[in-house]
Amino acid sequence: MDLLTLTLNEERRVTLTAVLQGTGGEYHKLTKRRPAVLVLPGGGYDYCSERESEPVALAFAKAGYQAFVLRYSTGAFKDWPNPMEDYEQAMELIRGKADEWNLWPDKLAVIGFSAGGHLAACGATIGRNRPDAAVLIYPVTTQESADMCGAGMPAPVEHVSASTPPCFLAATRTDMTVPVLDSLRFEQELVRYGIEFESHIYGYGNHGFATGDPYMNDTPVCARTADWIPDCIGWLEDLFGVPTFTGFEDPVCPRTVNADRADVLSLDCTVAHLLRQEGEAAELLTPVRSALDRAVAEYSDHGRNVEPLFRLRTLREMLRRIGFPAEDLGDLDDALKKIPNPEKA
Amino acid sequence: MDLLTLTLNEERRVTLTAVLQGTGGEYHKLTKRRPAVLVLPGGGYDYCSERESEPVALAFAKAGYQAFVLRYSTGAFKDWPNPMEDYEQAMELIRGKADEWNLWPDKLAVIGFSAGGHLAACGATIGRNRPDAAVLIYPVTTQESADMCGAGMPAPVEHVSASTPPCFLAATRTDMTVPVLDSLRFEQELVRYGIEFESHIYGYGNHGFATGDPYMNDTPVCARTADWIPDCIGWLEDLFGVPTFTGFEDPVCPRTVNADRADVLSLDCTVAHLLRQEGEAAELLTPVRSALDRAVAEYSDHGRNVEPLFRLRTLREMLRRIGFPAEDLGDLDDALKKIPNPEKA
Amino acid sequence: MDLLTLTLNEERRVTLTAVLQGTGGEYHKLTKRRPAVLVLPGGGYDYCSERESEPVALAFAKAGYQAFVLRYSTGAFKDWPNPMEDYEQAMELIRGKADEWNLWPDKLAVIGFSAGGHLAACGATIGRNRPDAAVLIYPVTTQESADMCGAGMPAPVEHVSASTPPCFLAATRTDMTVPVLDSLRFEQELVRYGIEFESHIYGYGNHGFATGDPYMNDTPVCARTADWIPDCIGWLEDLFGVPTFTGFEDPVCPRTVNADRADVLSLDCTVAHLLRQEGEAAELLTPVRSALDRAVAEYSDHGRNVEPLFRLRTLREMLRRIGFPAEDLGDLDDALKKIPNPEKA
Amino acid sequence: MDLLTLTLNEERRVTLTAVLQGTGGEYHKLTKRRPAVLVLPGGGYDYCSERESEPVALAFAKAGYQAFVLRYSTGAFKDWPNPMEDYEQAMELIRGKADEWNLWPDKLAVIGFSAGGHLAACGATIGRNRPDAAVLIYPVTTQESADMCGAGMPAPVEHVSASTPPCFLAATRTDMTVPVLDSLRFEQELVRYGIEFESHIYGYGNHGFATGDPYMNDTPVCARTADWIPDCIGWLEDLFGVPTFTGFEDPVCPRTVNADRADVLSLDCTVAHLLRQEGEAAELLTPVRSALDRAVAEYSDHGRNVEPLFRLRTLREMLRRIGFPAEDLGDLDDALKKIPNPEKA
Repeated sequence: MDLLTLTLNEERRVTLTAVLQGTGGEYHKLTKRRPAVLVLPGGGYDYCSERESEPVALAFAKAGYQAFVLRYSTGAFKDWPNPMEDYEQAMELIRGKADEWNLWPDKLAVIGFSAGGHLAACGATIGRNRPDAAVLIYPVTTQESADMCGAGMPAPVEHVSASTPPCFLAATRTDMTVPVLDSLRFEQELVRYGIEFESHIYGYGNHGFATGDPYMNDTPVCARTADWIPDCIGWLEDLFGVPTFTGFEDPVCPRTVNADRADVLSLDCTVAHLLRQEGEAAELLTPVRSALDRAVAEYSDHGRNVEPLFRLRTLREMLRRIGFPAEDLGDLDDALKKIPNPEKA
Repeated sequence: MDLLTLTLNEERRVTLTAVLQGTGGEYHKLTKRRPAVLVLPGGGYDYCSERESEPVALAFAKAGYQAFVLRYSTGAFKDWPNPMEDYEQAMELIRGKADEWNLWPDKLAVIGFSAGGHLAACGATIGRNRPDAAVLIYPVTTQESADMCGAGMPAPVEHVSASTPPCFLAATRTDMTVPVLDSLRFEQELVRYGIEFESHIYGYGNHGFATGDPYMNDTPVCARTADWIPDCIGWLEDLFGVPTFTGFEDPVCPRTVNADRADVLSLDCTVAHLLRQEGEAAELLTPVRSALDRAVAEYSDHGRNVEPLFRLRTLREMLRRIGFPAEDLGDLDDALKKIPNPEKA
Repeated sequence: MDLLTLTLNEERRVTLTAVLQGTGGEYHKLTKRRPAVLVLPGGGYDYCSERESEPVALAFAKAGYQAFVLRYSTGAFKDWPNPMEDYEQAMELIRGKADEWNLWPDKLAVIGFSAGGHLAACGATIGRNRPDAAVLIYPVTTQESADMCGAGMPAPVEHVSASTPPCFLAATRTDMTVPVLDSLRFEQELVRYGIEFESHIYGYGNHGFATGDPYMNDTPVCARTADWIPDCIGWLEDLFGVPTFTGFEDPVCPRTVNADRADVLSLDCTVAHLLRQEGEAAELLTPVRSALDRAVAEYSDHGRNVEPLFRLRTLREMLRRIGFPAEDLGDLDDALKKIPNPEKA
Repeated sequence: MDLLTLTLNEERRVTLTAVLQGTGGEYHKLTKRRPAVLVLPGGGYDYCSERESEPVALAFAKAGYQAFVLRYSTGAFKDWPNPMEDYEQAMELIRGKADEWNLWPDKLAVIGFSAGGHLAACGATIGRNRPDAAVLIYPVTTQESADMCGAGMPAPVEHVSASTPPCFLAATRTDMTVPVLDSLRFEQELVRYGIEFESHIYGYGNHGFATGDPYMNDTPVCARTADWIPDCIGWLEDLFGVPTFTGFEDPVCPRTVNADRADVLSLDCTVAHLLRQEGEAAELLTPVRSALDRAVAEYSDHGRNVEPLFRLRTLREMLRRIGFPAEDLGDLDDALKKIPNPEKA
């Protein structure tokens, strides 16, 4: 194992610490490359918290990741866009050294806490260098909270889009430094754009619970806060694939909840999206329309309105639910995939 | 152990199943009374799902609860307010038989799934008989989703208030039957009224994951869904106290995040709430104002706006953060508690 | 769900309580039949503990099992073989009603605590009706401990054999009622006969921790004691297969650690076992002998004695370790399996 | 965080790697000093496994420990007592630098795997520098297994004594490299001397499962193997106290199961030990003897032999069980503690 500390900006005291583990040898196929995390500690842009730095990097390193900690511009140097530039520089450096440091440049998650969560959320929404997943722990996302960090800070919640990567959020209900609303509102924006996320809002505990270990906290904190790291590792494995001795298993969780903004049409678009297509797509869908119509009729007793389901369900899921024969679907999917999606991201 | 099934409404086929465990004897002090849960299975008001009934009740019974399942009016009998009346009847029956069934009438949680989550959320917001905690698993809360269940169903998200009890929510991001927004919007309303909650939104999995056990699901579901039951039991213990052999430990989690709507003022009101009081309260707070002013000055470098913190933090927490001597606070709290709160719920 | 209580012996007050859950319907393929557990509570043959009865049955019922509790002969009726006869009667009844009660007669585990663990261990070693797995929680297994229960009780540790089923054991190091040695010595016997087992000896806690839940214990108990139920469910799934919506997944854990007592020879016999065969088997093994000889030579530097490895490793594992080509093994295994094992159980 | 690599013996390529985390500052009282672990990787004394080195140290570092990895003499340099000398040198160095490296010299656990488990067990039994706890993961403890590592290796199982520290053991039932008996026999010796231990024998999995993470294993391994690290951290906290922001909580688990080898007598000696004392001790015990006699008479129905209980139970526990008034015990304990224990270790 190597521990490197690289100075990214001497004047602003910006450093990147790297915890790099071996590859090949006993690890066989797996660690020709490893997945990676970049940790952005919190501290209100006044300082970078030790409690949210190495202890977090160590947990992911143990789980098989190359782990980095960025100590970005704070205090006298915190004015925007300094911290953002530090982030971009770190991401470029890490992906640029993917070969040397034996990591997958497309399995790189950023993990930010509080103000570092603000920076991570900025990276995920307005960064030139988007992470492959963003882990936001009691993050600042709204303008009001950003203003508590300093003037001129952007509000990442206002910049979520179809190009935002999947996100993992954790916070406590009783946070009295950054409101839990900063997490909830960010999640709502992720819903708007169909982005995958996972979220854990724990019942109580102070802002800054870090890893949730008892030695991290000087006030009572919900015991379940310590679950976020194993839960996050599980989620990243769902997204990136489980690292095993012989390589990565296939991911089980898609990065968007439907294909309404994909390049081409498919069964994974919502029913509503497909039904508003014209021309060839409409023609291809003729055989399933009657099945859908029958289903609608069936569901619509008692004045029930099923129309929202069409916006929620992919055609694949809708047809599965109504028992449409699965063997008839492969050809339809193939044919749809030849049609460009007019609403692609 | 006894298993009772009581018919609440023969015509509408409404039944209450009770899993009742012994008290006294080997259980000593604890089970003079036990805490209790009332399970409301889902099924779109078409039927009551078996998967969301006994398996859930059994898990809570094992953890020491008296456990009930209400099979409420569905199908031909689902029209509102039939299911709501069933709920009220069940709650009254359970609390009315608290002595006979050896349960604490003020430690009674309702647990609802999907449409049952709608019913549980209605109980928690517009019910005559409020539960002491509401556990809402992929619940229907919005008007749009309620309309998918049938005409005339209320939207509990519109009725959250200061008298709503603490809530625990769980859902999956990729739910294609009830949108995850139904949970997120409900949580936002709980924030608005300062109500305690815990929430777990898992990365993926179909609507209806029930206990999350593999035998419950016919499509891939995020492994973490199976955590909701132990997490919920932990959360209920935080709220109700841990049941032990010699009685209940004290609760560690309050039912509201601050005391802004309590009967009297206290250090647990937010700074903003207290600062807008006049008369005696204002006078009592004079000594801490200068400490607050110094803190504001300190935080307000770089154009930072700290004013939102005053709406978020209790005075107790704010004074702790700025290092105000704890020994000076007891008298202040006692004095504040003699002053009625003009904004009490 | 049904809760039945059947009287097995009125005079001796022996009852069998059954927690039976539905099949078919929402459970599809799975619950044409379910796996099953028979719980034997402890109580020193003086009584049957409530704490070790329904709370345990409920946990397994929640996990998908048909669950039974036998209240066997105790107190004035405890003299051997009364409790054993009760056990046999219960096992015959459960397996005899496998169709009616929708359970797999070959996926039936017995779970015993303390004196009930003695009875379960007797069932697993000298019973006419062997369980498919035995779960022994702080069990009595030695003559000395059996004598503490009453005169004339057998010592199951002396009757372990190749026909004993796989076992799961849990106990605390500081048990002051039944020595932890009763578990350790039983495990050593299981080793002697190549039987699969799992064992968790927790650091501290009194005898009788039951489910490990705080409300079960009136003295401090190691928090990890509460893990035995989920760990045991995981172990049973390894042995029986995971119950899913579409049936059981294949077991991943074999019931014996090698095939030295199987009906026929195979690659899963130990190297030592195969090398002492003569005739056809010896001939078949000629090609692998030179590979083994090379491996022995390689390992035997510095006076190292590798001979014990031959008694420990199956030929399959030994060849895997020394990099023998896997593609050459299928034919050898097939050929070996045509040869009867002279030491079969 | 610092990562140091110190060369302990250049010729034999012995190094000590230290993962040292900060103290004071954000960590307040806690990390004036931290507890510590010394990891001894396995590899059959041929090499030191990477998989059993840093990934393990990282997990404990994350949990708040100063963590060390010793790469001891292997291969051409493995002849005994070279590795043992390396161990002694490392322990002396770590304890000698306790001030500089901010660790508690009396909260130092050694963690060894396989051959490293042999070395750790030697440290715990015949070392000049005993650890405060020994964590033995699939360890070599018997002469037969030690001989598989090389000629002249000692068998730690033969050297367990009253001065052996508490131990944590983990292994798999189906280990085909080091027999599970090496763990079981070691545990039996710990029982003989009254030493605290915890043990987890998982159902199946190859030797060398390391942290149990999927990327560590190239063959199927029982999922529960990954629990040993959190379980071990929990056990160490039971022994050493939980590290919190304001210092260590009191340990809840004693280092021996009774006080039969302590310097003085007390209520924590076994009944048998106390009853065989003469003179003053015998006199002091006169009042409790009649209570014990009554209990014996009560238990001894049906030819039951309760005598083994006297060897198992402390007097404190025995009196608690028979309901002897707790308020009468303090004076007795004080008086006993003035009498030297003739069998002290």
